[in-house]
Amino acid sequence: MDEATGWEPRYADRAARMRASEIRELLKLLDRPDIISFAGGIPDPALFPMEEAREAYAKCLASETVARQGLQYSVSEGYQPLREWIAGYMGRLGVRCTPDNILITSGSQQALEFIGKLLISSGETVLVEMPTYLGALQAFSAFEPQYDELRLENGNRTAASYGETAGRSERVKMAYVVPDHANPTGKTLSVAARERLLDLAQDLDIPVVEDTAYAALCFEGEPKPSLQALDVKRCGSIDRSRVIYCGTFSKTITPGLRVGWICAAAPIVRRLVLIKQAADLNCSLLNQMVMHRLAESVFEGQVKRARTHYARRRDAMIKALANHMPAGVSWSEPGGGLFVWLTLPAGVDAAALLQRAVDEIGVAFVPGAAFFPDARGRNTLRLSYSLPDEPTIREGISRLGRLVAAL
Amino acid sequence: MDEATGWEPRYADRAARMRASEIRELLKLLDRPDIISFAGGIPDPALFPMEEAREAYAKCLASETVARQGLQYSVSEGYQPLREWIAGYMGRLGVRCTPDNILITSGSQQALEFIGKLLISSGETVLVEMPTYLGALQAFSAFEPQYDELRLENGNRTAASYGETAGRSERVKMAYVVPDHANPTGKTLSVAARERLLDLAQDLDIPVVEDTAYAALCFEGEPKPSLQALDVKRCGSIDRSRVIYCGTFSKTITPGLRVGWICAAAPIVRRLVLIKQAADLNCSLLNQMVMHRLAESVFEGQVKRARTHYARRRDAMIKALANHMPAGVSWSEPGGGLFVWLTLPAGVDAAALLQRAVDEIGVAFVPGAAFFPDARGRNTLRLSYSLPDEPTIREGISRLGRLVAAL
Repeated sequence: MDEATGWEPRYADRAARMRASEIRELLKLLDRPDIISFAGGIPDPALFPMEEAREAYAKCLASETVARQGLQYSVSEGYQPLREWIAGYMGRLGVRCTPDNILITSGSQQALEFIGKLLISSGETVLVEMPTYLGALQAFSAFEPQYDELRLENGNRTAASYGETAGRSERVKMAYVVPDHANPTGKTLSVAARERLLDLAQDLDIPVVEDTAYAALCFEGEPKPSLQALDVKRCGSIDRSRVIYCGTFSKTITPGLRVGWICAAAPIVRRLVLIKQAADLNCSLLNQMVMHRLAESVFEGQVKRARTHYARRRDAMIKALANHMPAGVSWSEPGGGLFVWLTLPAGVDAAALLQRAVDEIGVAFVPGAAFFPDARGRNTLRLSYSLPDEPTIREGISRLGRLVAAL
Repeated sequence: MDEATGWEPRYADRAARMRASEIRELLKLLDRPDIISFAGGIPDPALFPMEEAREAYAKCLASETVARQGLQYSVSEGYQPLREWIAGYMGRLGVRCTPDNILITSGSQQALEFIGKLLISSGETVLVEMPTYLGALQAFSAFEPQYDELRLENGNRTAASYGETAGRSERVKMAYVVPDHANPTGKTLSVAARERLLDLAQDLDIPVVEDTAYAALCFEGEPKPSLQALDVKRCGSIDRSRVIYCGTFSKTITPGLRVGWICAAAPIVRRLVLIKQAADLNCSLLNQMVMHRLAESVFEGQVKRARTHYARRRDAMIKALANHMPAGVSWSEPGGGLFVWLTLPAGVDAAALLQRAVDEIGVAFVPGAAFFPDARGRNTLRLSYSLPDEPTIREGISRLGRLVAAL
């Protein structure tokens, strides 16, 4: 109870049930010049297309007619030319669709929140990998689901088994995955695992929420086919697909305009448009217009630059880990994205290690337990290589290696 | 059931329970040059500070350091200098507070959605005036409240009576009002009615949500003290206040940047920050930086211009109504804001009238029933004078008067 306001304890306090992000506190360490932070996981601002953003805002605001439109309220589904561009992009990824299949959201975080609101009622079961994206757990938590674990690469359970754990099969409401270069593990699902997930979803007759935040940041070869592309192949049309695809420009162009999207069957999008309208009416039209210009002019180039940039940093981190981590420590070797997932010897507590790392060696990371909906993962941690440059990565990992070796 | 996706009927479909906005369809009529539309209620883009917006974006993006910050992720509570400006503004309105009392939201629509999420559980009672802002009903509806009616100017019921109707007193969860130049009625609560509402909220021990979207657009004299200012006088400090104030720049500067705010006791704001984080991480920092510059440079001037501009249109509409409406029709005479509320003779159906008005005389408005959470108000309608100029207002009301007279 907060004594300051006597009526507070009276209300259904969803916020109190929401997981406060420990990452929030850790992000403050990013600003401390004495700390080498692997805690972030946000894109490197050195990659932002500054000149092009400047020009795009200037051009949109130069015409009186366009500026008046950009500064006015707008339709909830989003700016039509941007929806068209995204529909074209989805087509290139193997999902033939139209703007009616696209809703513009304030980043893909808002997409997750809307999907939670559409799908989840209290006590129903959401299937997730464990660990999984903390922000998804936060977005869903207001709707009070239970979680059950997907093990897609091996040991996956049957639909009947998930139904039993949920109480009965109809209480399993959706599956959520980050199939490519996942936050926090950096891992990518094999095509076989993707097909198994679609089989399971078919057996349970549930939608699959596909979070593709890092899919474009693929360091070697081409990205794997999306779950949605595989499902559209199965069912013949986006409008019959059970996959709800969440996309974003945050990791490729910039997160500062808050522009992401949902691609889904048109009947789903129509419902989500109502949710958008009730939630915040519409995304800033000016920002959507600017993002449309940037998507047209710099998207491909940005993706290429980001792949090269982050691949170099991934290389530096993996090499430094091999050089400095003692036996008994293992880590993922991501083929893209921004994260390495590190497993300490059983019994080592990453939260306690973080405290010592910040105080004694000036290094920060995120303890892995934050990414589990249950109490697991205490001996794991997430390292991001997105912000520090290569020499800093080597220095930070070398310090961390020495600290871990001395445990 | 949508046949396109077989699993659809399986999920808890909150969207299906949400009120689709009829206004949405009506807004499309704004673009038809053959229609005189009083349906809008959005600000006149002729008032947007174009030159200043152009300059503000250019300045924020000119510095590499500032631009990188503006295009990056940011803290959920909002841009500190903007929160400081708003805290100062709230102080001038009689609410001494600090940035810790301010959360930046994507317009005040998002504020309403967050408050619904924080406060309302299924079946609990929300007290509202009837009619009230449709967007608030939409925002709250995902959390499935019951509604009971506030009659603040006369006939207000006791706390016990509200408690009885709700089942028991603890099921009354909050009161929501638009005290100044309300959407849709244009009416403003007297100071006595405000005090009565605070008394009732004290008796029921509930928070009061104060939606001030139109408060600054006061045509004569100064705005009335806000509920929050009156409550802070009672309890001595914002951090003990039960009033949650929702503000916005949408009607004074521009809605296109999607910047509004909540001012409330710091413990409430801390919980709402968690909700913001889960909902969409943060509002576009670049837009917040630009809004901060605009607030500092043009806010006062914008408010003055808007008051004069809309007052002239209000005058034109009220005069035209007096000249052209037949006996048996009555209307509100707003002292500010954007709306006139019109009551037709009992038995006349405004929805049917709208159909005829669009088809036969090229005039649009919003049937009043949309603003009632129950089935009332069929003989009422909302007229907005915000977009058409004075000659167009006269022409449209004259046509509408003839149509009503011929019923």
